[in-house]
Amino acid sequence: MFKRETRVLGIDDGPYDKNSSNKSILVGTLFRGGKWLDGVLKTEIHIDGMDANSKIQEMITKSRHYDQVQFVFLDGITFAGFNIVDIKKLHKAIGIPTIVVSRRYPNFDEIKNAIKNLSYSKKRWKKIKSAGTPVEVNTVQDENNKPVYIQFCGLKKSDAIKITKMTSTRSRIPEPIRAAHLISTGIVEGDSYGNA
Amino acid sequence: MFKRETRVLGIDDGPYDKNSSNKSILVGTLFRGGKWLDGVLKTEIHIDGMDANSKIQEMITKSRHYDQVQFVFLDGITFAGFNIVDIKKLHKAIGIPTIVVSRRYPNFDEIKNAIKNLSYSKKRWKKIKSAGTPVEVNTVQDENNKPVYIQFCGLKKSDAIKITKMTSTRSRIPEPIRAAHLISTGIVEGDSYGNA
Repeated sequence: MFKRETRVLGIDDGPYDKNSSNKSILVGTLFRGGKWLDGVLKTEIHIDGMDANSKIQEMITKSRHYDQVQFVFLDGITFAGFNIVDIKKLHKAIGIPTIVVSRRYPNFDEIKNAIKNLSYSKKRWKKIKSAGTPVEVNTVQDENNKPVYIQFCGLKKSDAIKITKMTSTRSRIPEPIRAAHLISTGIVEGDSYGNA
Repeated sequence: MFKRETRVLGIDDGPYDKNSSNKSILVGTLFRGGKWLDGVLKTEIHIDGMDANSKIQEMITKSRHYDQVQFVFLDGITFAGFNIVDIKKLHKAIGIPTIVVSRRYPNFDEIKNAIKNLSYSKKRWKKIKSAGTPVEVNTVQDENNKPVYIQFCGLKKSDAIKITKMTSTRSRIPEPIRAAHLISTGIVEGDSYGNA
């Protein structure tokens, strides 16, 4: 099993305004288990761009924390609009098991429709499909709480479920994602919002 | 006594480069006790400027978290070079007990010398003196660990010591300050460093 102090990185994007910039920030938070913040990373990606993979890869591999990271969590598979992560390619590039966490079951028809007028729509769609079928996980032992849905690469399904549950210590999503959301919104807007 | 989930805000500045900007970011983190991150605030102040008080006041009072904050921790009394906080004035403006935490006993001769060639040097010196005599606090029960030094306003010395100890859960400084440091350096440099 996993040690309680397993180092996990959570990544989320910030809010953006297409009228003022063509980029959005991505924030990574390194946590020991679901417990405490150990490091913060930042990069920028283009809105509706194609650079999410290369920028995330660079942010992680160039970090002084790189050799400590044992699992990477992504807050969904699309950042900054439809800048989509190819998780198989990311996993291969960084050598770290990667788990995508979504609060709702992805609406694939909606995504397909949304990207059809963007450049590289076929490439984008391929990345979406390559992430695999989302798996329902009940992270919180409370019948009123909703589940999350995970897609993963580089680890067994049972391990992906275990590490997702283990790190969801304060809400139904892994703590590094919750913190990355608070930081990215707080830094961009001046004040954070939501529970992530 | 204080509840374990007392909401505390910690404030630290980010690294800055005088050649590329005349401002530095200030990051505020809201924690429940020394435990977990509940919100993130951000503002900007001028390097060696005089706007630390007004900007911190605005960041706190305009935040949606304002009515929850029970204590404010500052990582030292000078931000962005010698943009100095008048903690008595800040406490009066925000109505929240305020505690300055320093890792070393402030070298007042050095500070006096450093600000003498800046504008408003007398005003700056007055703010430094107005914070009062630093009080040594041993936050960690380990004889190898160094103490911290606190200055405070709006609460009793014994309470200032208690809340400083209570929130120093992961290092010898209060957790909201440690996290604010990681976030401010990570956001500015792309990767955080130090243990705060």
